[in-house]
Amino acid sequence: MNWPGVIEAYRPYLPFDADAPVVTLNEGNTPLIHAPRLAEQIAPRGGLQLYLKYEGLNPTGSFKDRGMTAAISRAVQEGAETVICASTGNTAASAAAYAARAGLRCLVLVPQGKIALGKLAASLAYGAEVISIDGSFDDGLRMVREITERRADSRRPIALVNSVNPWRLEGQKTGAFEIVDQLGGQAPDWHCLPVGNAGNISAYWLGYKQYAKGLPRLLGGQAAGAAPIVLGRVVEKPETLATAIRIGNPARWRQAVEALDESGGIITAVSDEDILEAWRLLARVEGVFVEPASATGLAALRQQIALGEIDPAGRTAVVVLTGHGLKDPGTAVEQAAAPITLKAEIEALERYLRG
Amino acid sequence: MNWPGVIEAYRPYLPFDADAPVVTLNEGNTPLIHAPRLAEQIAPRGGLQLYLKYEGLNPTGSFKDRGMTAAISRAVQEGAETVICASTGNTAASAAAYAARAGLRCLVLVPQGKIALGKLAASLAYGAEVISIDGSFDDGLRMVREITERRADSRRPIALVNSVNPWRLEGQKTGAFEIVDQLGGQAPDWHCLPVGNAGNISAYWLGYKQYAKGLPRLLGGQAAGAAPIVLGRVVEKPETLATAIRIGNPARWRQAVEALDESGGIITAVSDEDILEAWRLLARVEGVFVEPASATGLAALRQQIALGEIDPAGRTAVVVLTGHGLKDPGTAVEQAAAPITLKAEIEALERYLRG
Repeated sequence: MNWPGVIEAYRPYLPFDADAPVVTLNEGNTPLIHAPRLAEQIAPRGGLQLYLKYEGLNPTGSFKDRGMTAAISRAVQEGAETVICASTGNTAASAAAYAARAGLRCLVLVPQGKIALGKLAASLAYGAEVISIDGSFDDGLRMVREITERRADSRRPIALVNSVNPWRLEGQKTGAFEIVDQLGGQAPDWHCLPVGNAGNISAYWLGYKQYAKGLPRLLGGQAAGAAPIVLGRVVEKPETLATAIRIGNPARWRQAVEALDESGGIITAVSDEDILEAWRLLARVEGVFVEPASATGLAALRQQIALGEIDPAGRTAVVVLTGHGLKDPGTAVEQAAAPITLKAEIEALERYLRG
Repeated sequence: MNWPGVIEAYRPYLPFDADAPVVTLNEGNTPLIHAPRLAEQIAPRGGLQLYLKYEGLNPTGSFKDRGMTAAISRAVQEGAETVICASTGNTAASAAAYAARAGLRCLVLVPQGKIALGKLAASLAYGAEVISIDGSFDDGLRMVREITERRADSRRPIALVNSVNPWRLEGQKTGAFEIVDQLGGQAPDWHCLPVGNAGNISAYWLGYKQYAKGLPRLLGGQAAGAAPIVLGRVVEKPETLATAIRIGNPARWRQAVEALDESGGIITAVSDEDILEAWRLLARVEGVFVEPASATGLAALRQQIALGEIDPAGRTAVVVLTGHGLKDPGTAVEQAAAPITLKAEIEALERYLRG
């Protein structure tokens, strides 16, 4: 049995014809890791069943691959030879990889100086043309929208693969399908995740509604410095170390609010300190290394349990970890203790061990 | 169905009792990616069926997790509270993660100044005590061997989790099991992989012999500057940009030679330039980003096909990609074209697109 990627695995639940071309890197099928020690830390003696959906183990290191297999497959079907996106990093790497796999030209617009090294490196390695603009993510999004509109009726269409592309959501829904399958057919009680551009929370909700017996309540976490949905207003200059969710005006804002309402969910802001603490707990208590933004769902769950807003007793919570820690090694190096230096002699090691 | 990690998935084939404790991050179950475009590049009209076993999608980003779940599970059973290893990077990250998951103290000895940032960052994030020694990998290995021997009969044993630990091979065998399962019960004709410390080639061979109908021929690639098995002598100062296989005196040398002989295999040296070209092809033709050492198996296959030593006609080849490209973003940045800089204006983008 070779896992064929999310489109083949869930084709009856997705709007792809039987003969539609599929561009896949066998994405999806990511681990759902049981985390009893971490559950005990955030809800002592609370009876919480905690699971980590480790989306950083998708091919390019983030959940974006689920949507990108759908968007690029569709672009190929429509005859596009070039794809373009504006990205804070993860979308760019994913677009670049799937475009390479399909033999398409790929342009990615990134805001100058705001992208972690690992993310930029990947896009470059995949052969994308990385264009650094002297503007924000939102400026980049405006540019790629306009250029694709200008080319829409030409013989050389350019496919826009940002999350405004509706096919992205279709692919991302499969995250919910997998969680339900991995939990034996049931949705969890709580589904916790970071909310940046709000595509992922919207997609998960679509997925659960389509596939699950019972529905979860959604818990969305936003970084306090980039929390437009929590605040109910656009944030002009979003700031957080969680770069992947540093977004002031989410593309799927309305859809996210609807999903939260329908599910009886919660959206909350967590400080960068709380995100980092959750990030630390994931790595040190369970051995799961994520990029900082990915810890936001756990930070939100920990906060809501501490506040008494979520009762963990007998509940199942799934926390989506959106990207791998290797995406942002800089934060790890900054936060960690420095390496110890010793002479290459056994007695030096003995002395160190004795403390 | 939730994939339970390699020990649970293959317990009847592994020396773990039914009640033995298992420390897992649900490792394994990595994609086997069909690569027809790449096959056409390395064997034009050759009829080669090429598959990429993407081991970089294990939890810590490399194949080491397969062996580490076994080694750490065994350490827990034996009552160890501390684990130690010497490592060029991937072993350290894996040991650190599984030790964290099990609540054990973890010490990793690394040679000063030779480790890629992403690898060191991960070990630090997992909370390992990273000890930088002013010596080589082999010096570190000597030290950790001695310290664990000194503690062997004490009330506080320290578990050595380097690849000399026999449990590592038991876990790593599961890579072969998975490939056979993913190919529908058959071994490939050729199994291609990098050879550094030679644990992986030894483990795969054990796995195939135990599990497969039919056996593959093994193709091992060593970096030309670190090719002791090819040369038949220890390399005192191994040099290659493929840091993960920069090893001059492999721990599993004899076993690797036996495996190669039994399989009717080939071991060959490839230049750093050929490794980089294979690395580039993987990312740009198939959208698969690996650390440089991981491309060595493909470089060896490409070389042997070009030399006429391997006839690709009607053959199936599996290339093991041992670690994710995010492990070593520096190489990607060095090798790639620099990002293009544009003003955040649509006309600037138009001009760029028109070339």
